[in-house]
Amino acid sequence: MDKKTACAHIPPDTHFSYTTRDAIIYALGVGARVKEDLRYIYENSDNFQVLPSYVVAPGFASMSLMDWPGIDFDLQRILHGEQYIEVYNPLPEEGNLRSEARVVDIVDKGSFALILCDVTTYDEATGKKISTQQFSTFQSGSGNFGGERTSVHEKKTVPIPTRAPDAVVEQKTSVDQAGLYRMAGGDLNPLHVDPNFAKMSGFKTPILHGLGTFGFATRHVLATWGGNDASKFKAMKVRFSSPVIPGQTLVTETWKDGNRIIFQTKVKETGKTVISNSYMDLHEASAKPTIQDGLDSKL
Amino acid sequence: MDKKTACAHIPPDTHFSYTTRDAIIYALGVGARVKEDLRYIYENSDNFQVLPSYVVAPGFASMSLMDWPGIDFDLQRILHGEQYIEVYNPLPEEGNLRSEARVVDIVDKGSFALILCDVTTYDEATGKKISTQQFSTFQSGSGNFGGERTSVHEKKTVPIPTRAPDAVVEQKTSVDQAGLYRMAGGDLNPLHVDPNFAKMSGFKTPILHGLGTFGFATRHVLATWGGNDASKFKAMKVRFSSPVIPGQTLVTETWKDGNRIIFQTKVKETGKTVISNSYMDLHEASAKPTIQDGLDSKL
Repeated sequence: MDKKTACAHIPPDTHFSYTTRDAIIYALGVGARVKEDLRYIYENSDNFQVLPSYVVAPGFASMSLMDWPGIDFDLQRILHGEQYIEVYNPLPEEGNLRSEARVVDIVDKGSFALILCDVTTYDEATGKKISTQQFSTFQSGSGNFGGERTSVHEKKTVPIPTRAPDAVVEQKTSVDQAGLYRMAGGDLNPLHVDPNFAKMSGFKTPILHGLGTFGFATRHVLATWGGNDASKFKAMKVRFSSPVIPGQTLVTETWKDGNRIIFQTKVKETGKTVISNSYMDLHEASAKPTIQDGLDSKL
Repeated sequence: MDKKTACAHIPPDTHFSYTTRDAIIYALGVGARVKEDLRYIYENSDNFQVLPSYVVAPGFASMSLMDWPGIDFDLQRILHGEQYIEVYNPLPEEGNLRSEARVVDIVDKGSFALILCDVTTYDEATGKKISTQQFSTFQSGSGNFGGERTSVHEKKTVPIPTRAPDAVVEQKTSVDQAGLYRMAGGDLNPLHVDPNFAKMSGFKTPILHGLGTFGFATRHVLATWGGNDASKFKAMKVRFSSPVIPGQTLVTETWKDGNRIIFQTKVKETGKTVISNSYMDLHEASAKPTIQDGLDSKL
């Protein structure tokens, strides 16, 4: 890993176009439901919106670490460790976006290298800044290169409160969830459907995309504390602590702290925490949680 | 209904482009599963294929009955009654298709009019004929216009054998199946997701697309008697006898008759037959049915 070279590199801007259909496929890919989430999956609904977490699609498309000078990239040793997104203006119903990707730091975590890549995305039609986001990529076996152990650029996770959660949301994923997310979020890594590739990467079976779970968690928190209204969304930081197998049930536990909702997501069948020490900032969080039937929510 | 005018009308050819991603979204929209149907949902699988029933997407796109001279079209009174498809050359992994749509007859069924529309589809790259298909559209309240009661153009359904089925296949649809099929097959009729529109059309709740159920049945029969191999597919005729509510379980009963597989599909929860008197012709049917784990098949 050559941090100086990687951080100095300025790749060409990337362009990402999406249709309303693409935004709907994304919503379905992260578990939006016809009945409860009509606004995200039906283009003629009165209040059609694009899920804020869809910004990870242009973000992902812009982040070509595979060919980045200074980074010895190995697809079979990398894992998406954390993700931060901040949305300044709601995503349009369809759009042409321009993104700037920058490696802002490579942190030496000993057993692995942590690559921090910031992506800023603009609406090409209006010139407005839509979002900034940070991809935290872990590459195992690439640490110990003599770098710093921490970084001022790193968006931080938060501690989970010790009290019982204020609201809990539960939703089963489909066994075919990763197959659909591949078509939704644009991450075609074979790890998520190809059993042979999954085995080569050290997994018994294909796993769900971290950003797939991320989308589910976005919906869970937004539906529970933001009236399921995308325009209430401000920012979110997530740590991926363990993979999800498509078909498992996600249980998102939430704690309200003013307009910040702290959360973690577990797999019901195993009890394992898959998203940890995470939060979503809302422009205005509800005083009390909204319970949605379809999500099997419970307090 | 003015049959003479409708049959004389020659609309401009329609053009339909699809990507491999579109074909995969279609497969997922009709219930293809990551584990058992990798060839239909993973673009890098050794034997990637496009489901033969995907030809209904260019077919549907070409059939603009709403603006067809001689037809008094009413979206709220029409139902897709039957569908025939014949595939001469396998659909390419991605493609540009040209389709010719012709109303070949309007049959006076008394309480309703039966509009027969044939669509012939060509691969623009090779010029090869890919498929012919027939859409049978019922419009209630539009019969008794003094027309013939039968038609030589009509592709006929078949009687169901009196013996017990040779193989039965069972698969649950998702409650969000119609939401995904809209994005997959290109039929954006609000009937399939909008509860208010569904009520106006006389349904308690949005219903699955007939062509969605059609895709499930195609997969069931092809997996059971054609080794799940799209190249074995020759032709298929289906009658839609009752609607399916997303979330219901489809049970397809099959009878082998040489290379013709006669079938019907029922809803497990209600016992209602939803696809009746139907058949698929294969180039070479298996001697014995293949049982697939994921489909909960049973003999």
